[in-house]
Amino acid sequence: MGRWEPNARGRLEEAALALYGERGYEQVTVAEIAARAGLTERTFFRHYADKREVLFAGSGLLREILVKGVAEAPASAAPIDVVAAALAGAGALLEERRELARARQVVIDANPELQEREVVKLATLATEVAGALRDRGVAEPAASLAAQTGIAVFRVAFESWVGDTGRRELPDIVRECFAELGTLI
Amino acid sequence: MGRWEPNARGRLEEAALALYGERGYEQVTVAEIAARAGLTERTFFRHYADKREVLFAGSGLLREILVKGVAEAPASAAPIDVVAAALAGAGALLEERRELARARQVVIDANPELQEREVVKLATLATEVAGALRDRGVAEPAASLAAQTGIAVFRVAFESWVGDTGRRELPDIVRECFAELGTLI
Repeated sequence: MGRWEPNARGRLEEAALALYGERGYEQVTVAEIAARAGLTERTFFRHYADKREVLFAGSGLLREILVKGVAEAPASAAPIDVVAAALAGAGALLEERRELARARQVVIDANPELQEREVVKLATLATEVAGALRDRGVAEPAASLAAQTGIAVFRVAFESWVGDTGRRELPDIVRECFAELGTLI
Repeated sequence: MGRWEPNARGRLEEAALALYGERGYEQVTVAEIAARAGLTERTFFRHYADKREVLFAGSGLLREILVKGVAEAPASAAPIDVVAAALAGAGALLEERRELARARQVVIDANPELQEREVVKLATLATEVAGALRDRGVAEPAASLAAQTGIAVFRVAFESWVGDTGRRELPDIVRECFAELGTLI
């Protein structure tokens, strides 16, 4: 097999999610993921450190989108609107990966250790969004309040989206949840 | 030494926090904690499963206070006000333990694994508060939005309190943070 494999990363991800869903995350080996994707273990390890990282590699991209979204928002925008718009942008990315994102969530919901990892990643995102807001000149505690609240709203929107059998899109659900929070407060 | 030790639990907690602060959490053994408290290892293990649990045993009480506070709030109270009042109540408990809570936070902030445990505990609290709101008849997504947002606000208030060298009390800071969130949204 050649060193260059077209879309090896995506094929490995799809193979891993399919196997985790069929047999349970704990039972699946890297060798099986590589075989299902028609690739070698060596190729797997060029893309992912281990089988858990297949599930969390996307969080780096999510972080970039959020931090960039916050940094590039109009200077006049209110902090909470900056966060809401950045999260809707992140939602658009996930919407494009709707089926993979749902398959991933089923795997995570079935495993307490993966749930903890997810919670920790979200907390890290909140801390980074707060930092990006401070870089815009937003003072504390407003920066942390807007960031932590934003991630809290995103979590609720995401769960609603994952459980939704209809055609509502994640960026819309994010906006609706921010609007609902406004009526609650 | 007799089986009954006056306030063994509290003495073990104080000894553990003092040792963690002096020498670093990783370096301290259960034997050393027991010795500092003037108790046996056997007594330690009657109260705590391991040295990590000394830091997190309080989360059960926090959970009880929050869930009870939500359950017993006036029927007419709005969900976010129910959550804010319950969190102010939890803040009062922590305010009574101000020095211990701060010593504990220094230990946790110095150790990524303990930070993750803390984040996971807070996420669990949010889920339980959402459940208590649903038990009051609050629909989704309002229940989860109010609970997740409330815990997000509490986290910000708690950090501000821990870092505050003045005499502001945690329940007041919790209320101020909810008020500030209101102006942000």
